[in-house]
Amino acid sequence: MEGMDALSRTRVVLARPSHPGNIGAAARAMKTMGLVDLALVSPRHFPDPDAMAMAAGAADVLAAARVFDTLEGALADCALAVGFSARERELSHAPSTLRDAAPSLIEATAEGRVALVFGNETSGLSNEELSRCQRFVVIPSNPGYGSLNLAAAVQVVCYELSVAARAFAAPAARERGAASVGDVEGLFTHLESAAVSSGFLDPEKPGRFMERMRRLFARARLERQEVKLLRGLLGALEKKKRR
Amino acid sequence: MEGMDALSRTRVVLARPSHPGNIGAAARAMKTMGLVDLALVSPRHFPDPDAMAMAAGAADVLAAARVFDTLEGALADCALAVGFSARERELSHAPSTLRDAAPSLIEATAEGRVALVFGNETSGLSNEELSRCQRFVVIPSNPGYGSLNLAAAVQVVCYELSVAARAFAAPAARERGAASVGDVEGLFTHLESAAVSSGFLDPEKPGRFMERMRRLFARARLERQEVKLLRGLLGALEKKKRR
Repeated sequence: MEGMDALSRTRVVLARPSHPGNIGAAARAMKTMGLVDLALVSPRHFPDPDAMAMAAGAADVLAAARVFDTLEGALADCALAVGFSARERELSHAPSTLRDAAPSLIEATAEGRVALVFGNETSGLSNEELSRCQRFVVIPSNPGYGSLNLAAAVQVVCYELSVAARAFAAPAARERGAASVGDVEGLFTHLESAAVSSGFLDPEKPGRFMERMRRLFARARLERQEVKLLRGLLGALEKKKRR
Repeated sequence: MEGMDALSRTRVVLARPSHPGNIGAAARAMKTMGLVDLALVSPRHFPDPDAMAMAAGAADVLAAARVFDTLEGALADCALAVGFSARERELSHAPSTLRDAAPSLIEATAEGRVALVFGNETSGLSNEELSRCQRFVVIPSNPGYGSLNLAAAVQVVCYELSVAARAFAAPAARERGAASVGDVEGLFTHLESAAVSSGFLDPEKPGRFMERMRRLFARARLERQEVKLLRGLLGALEKKKRR
């Protein structure tokens, strides 16, 4: 599986979320990255107006969210459950980093639904909850303060999976209307003659002026319209000088 | 530059943020990924108790944030300003994706401070603001709903930069106490004899039972303690059978 297909087979499971605002913000984070399947295990408050407010344009994800009494229930139809945590555990599986794990999580969607399991805001996943997961993934973070907000963690994980799934095309390069080599050479000729006629450049001792100009405009990768503007400006300056 | 050095030379600039909660959440997002330099351009409300509440353990980043009247002021001492946007613009630079851009942004910190510029929650960066940036980067997102929350966008960008900077080590693999080959072979011998003595396995027609068991336990990469537990269980089951 790849692309949107893989993401549509990926479920976000929030275990015992305390703040309904985080549930809504997580729904929004999911939808921006192409995920739609949200499961809640014993949320403290749900449904809730704060969840609605924070979901913004992802009200549909929130409305379709299912509530379970137990994590087992939320994972029953999944082929793989992945626990996320900021901390390492005594009894845990060996953790992998999000970047390293992402491609294999996308691959796993070919075998069935994949659940991404996030724990409570304050306490994270319990050891009991983590033991229901077959994999354990960490988001590397500042050892001095690694406490990502719950919805922020969901955003980062969904982003990483959408990149691994190649779900969204890179933005198309806008038609730049690149200037031709001839256009650019015309500009250089014009620039040099203007520099000479203005007295700025001594044609007997030109130094490296034109070389530097060529380097600058090569870096800038000029557009056709920009060459026109620059030549228009040069022309106007030359006329002014002659007056 | 790399690691924390690169991140300490990277500034987050929020242009005209409307909601103080987002300022606090952005400060938290930054700190979790090792960034500390926050600049605010004409925030609607700041300082504000909502910002403090959402900053959680990043109150220090918030307290050190500087407020500017203009984007120019916030960028004055920077070598490079990078504008972030969900949308493409008519007059914009050609955009690159966050993943593609991240390594070069980290490299650029060697030349001076790098500013990551985020626009207003509703309207994003204005064309005027974007024209103050030398680069334009997009976070690829769902074309049907690509509206990341402001602090969520800051979180994703800071995460991507911290990965590119190799700022935080991957979590150390816990000492697994892996079982030796001898331990595991002892288990297989024990398992096979128990299977035969229980009548489950016919030694004349063993089929592929042991081959399958070997494959299963090879995948599991057994720990020493687990081999002990399994052999203890086998021993107890054999005893029970004999009674």
